[in-house]
Amino acid sequence: MLRILMKIGKVHPALLQRLVFTRRGAARGDVVVGPAIGEDAAVVDLGGKYLVTHTDPITGSVNLLGSLAVYIPTNDVAVRGVEPMWLSVALLLPPGASEHLLDAITRQMDEAARRLGVTIVGGHTEVTTAVTRPVAVVTAMGVGNRFVSTSGAKPGDVVVMTKSAGQEAASILASDFAEEALKRGVPAEALERARGLIAEISVAKEALALADLATSMHDPTEGGVANGLAEIAYASKVSIDVRREDVVVYREVEALCRAFRIDPLETLSSGVLLATVPRGRLGEALERLQKLGVPHAVIGEVKPPSGYLVKIGDRRYNEPYVEDKLFALF
Amino acid sequence: MLRILMKIGKVHPALLQRLVFTRRGAARGDVVVGPAIGEDAAVVDLGGKYLVTHTDPITGSVNLLGSLAVYIPTNDVAVRGVEPMWLSVALLLPPGASEHLLDAITRQMDEAARRLGVTIVGGHTEVTTAVTRPVAVVTAMGVGNRFVSTSGAKPGDVVVMTKSAGQEAASILASDFAEEALKRGVPAEALERARGLIAEISVAKEALALADLATSMHDPTEGGVANGLAEIAYASKVSIDVRREDVVVYREVEALCRAFRIDPLETLSSGVLLATVPRGRLGEALERLQKLGVPHAVIGEVKPPSGYLVKIGDRRYNEPYVEDKLFALF
Repeated sequence: MLRILMKIGKVHPALLQRLVFTRRGAARGDVVVGPAIGEDAAVVDLGGKYLVTHTDPITGSVNLLGSLAVYIPTNDVAVRGVEPMWLSVALLLPPGASEHLLDAITRQMDEAARRLGVTIVGGHTEVTTAVTRPVAVVTAMGVGNRFVSTSGAKPGDVVVMTKSAGQEAASILASDFAEEALKRGVPAEALERARGLIAEISVAKEALALADLATSMHDPTEGGVANGLAEIAYASKVSIDVRREDVVVYREVEALCRAFRIDPLETLSSGVLLATVPRGRLGEALERLQKLGVPHAVIGEVKPPSGYLVKIGDRRYNEPYVEDKLFALF
Repeated sequence: MLRILMKIGKVHPALLQRLVFTRRGAARGDVVVGPAIGEDAAVVDLGGKYLVTHTDPITGSVNLLGSLAVYIPTNDVAVRGVEPMWLSVALLLPPGASEHLLDAITRQMDEAARRLGVTIVGGHTEVTTAVTRPVAVVTAMGVGNRFVSTSGAKPGDVVVMTKSAGQEAASILASDFAEEALKRGVPAEALERARGLIAEISVAKEALALADLATSMHDPTEGGVANGLAEIAYASKVSIDVRREDVVVYREVEALCRAFRIDPLETLSSGVLLATVPRGRLGEALERLQKLGVPHAVIGEVKPPSGYLVKIGDRRYNEPYVEDKLFALF
């Protein structure tokens, strides 16, 4: 049956499974982690060392494109516990794009990459009628001696998160829907604080700090913390129980999400690290996050598989696909 | 001064130099070849082994998108003399795209990757209003013990090419402008043959065959053989003299290019390998291409720098940017 892919955003996992993940070209024995639900980055065995790569398209922002193009894909390498080192960048500009736009994008990329210690090693810049607004597609790469996968969570592990659920969505709402937010009663100073959250979008430092003791790491994007946890549970073949009241939601995020009737646990949350940690090493993990000065919380624990992927309070998520309501606003 | 980037296609080298190549984030000592005019792929030193990567966006085709998305970026790794091994793929689909379209694209990608022995290790598939037609952005990667750069051509080297100048442009003209071509007097069987040229778009086998004896390799795309040679000359700080009559142009390519008033030496030529070879190893190089059954020709030679980059017959090219007239047709 031929269907139309109407929904804007990630393609449904069932379709991905059928038309994408099964069509991977030649089989190579060196591919340790390939395309799979919830696996953020691919891992290739170089003979004792591991090459970790991830490609992400940034299609949803103009003003922050350059920064996001660096932070989003490097997050995916970092949650594999491997330092992001190199970026390859394709920049697609719509006809009529100005030098000023290119200037702003590459300036942001340069700054973000310096901040992370990452080098842009190559790419391609093109003006094309194929895009309606600037699009950056970035592959981040790094090499390490070992790696953490999404699929390693074990029953008994404890779930740790950093920063605030929904923080990415809130920063977008505060930037692109500011007027509407004010109309809906969100205080101006909450908007101001929410806009600032975009600076907290990298998880590289906290992910690398936990790399040697986490059993699984993931950075929730679309579908938020709920979807991120569901992906960990799906990949690890476990269930995860979360106490809703322990999930951190900053006040400005809460205010914006309430105004737009979006569950902060089910919407864009780049900048949040989700990690599962063996109970015996929890103290160590928390101490390291403390030292980094990254806000964090213990929000739940990993259980044997129980017929659902994630339970948050009394809400159950049974598949690794949580629809992100933010997209309905565009 | 702020200018509008009006031209569709590659951004002018002067602008790339100013706004892109200088903004590369942190400096890392392991980057051996970074972004530069004519350098198709980046090279990173992994400690004795070299990681070669290249990212290419495929924005100009719908029917052949899946195949091009594999062949074009793997060419760029192969001309570094390193076997393409892994691909990371971002697929952007416009709203309303059908399952059928996704099916056709991933089927082609699977087939092309199998043919090259390459594995698709990861990626991202997304439906987005940012694109007007399907776009694939692919990073190809490979690891080798040594590499060939574009910048290694030496005075005295001989220039070898494979297949036909303008073959990619001809296959596009024959597919997308068939009716107009017939009207302009191109015979139907020439169109048929030109459409078939798309099957010859990979240079992987010939590039790998010459890897240990070429001083420089390159695959001309936009701006064709003239631009490809100008990029070699620019990167290598040499001049290149070519005998125009020795540059192979298949009859069907000649016919199509004449009908649309495009110089076949100045238009899309994926599938052509340009290689410079020390004169003493030319016999060996030709023998290997002969054995592979890849059509080839010796077209000129590398000279000390002489105030121009490339001379083809009595035409001189002084900068590594040849405008591709095919784009004016879209």
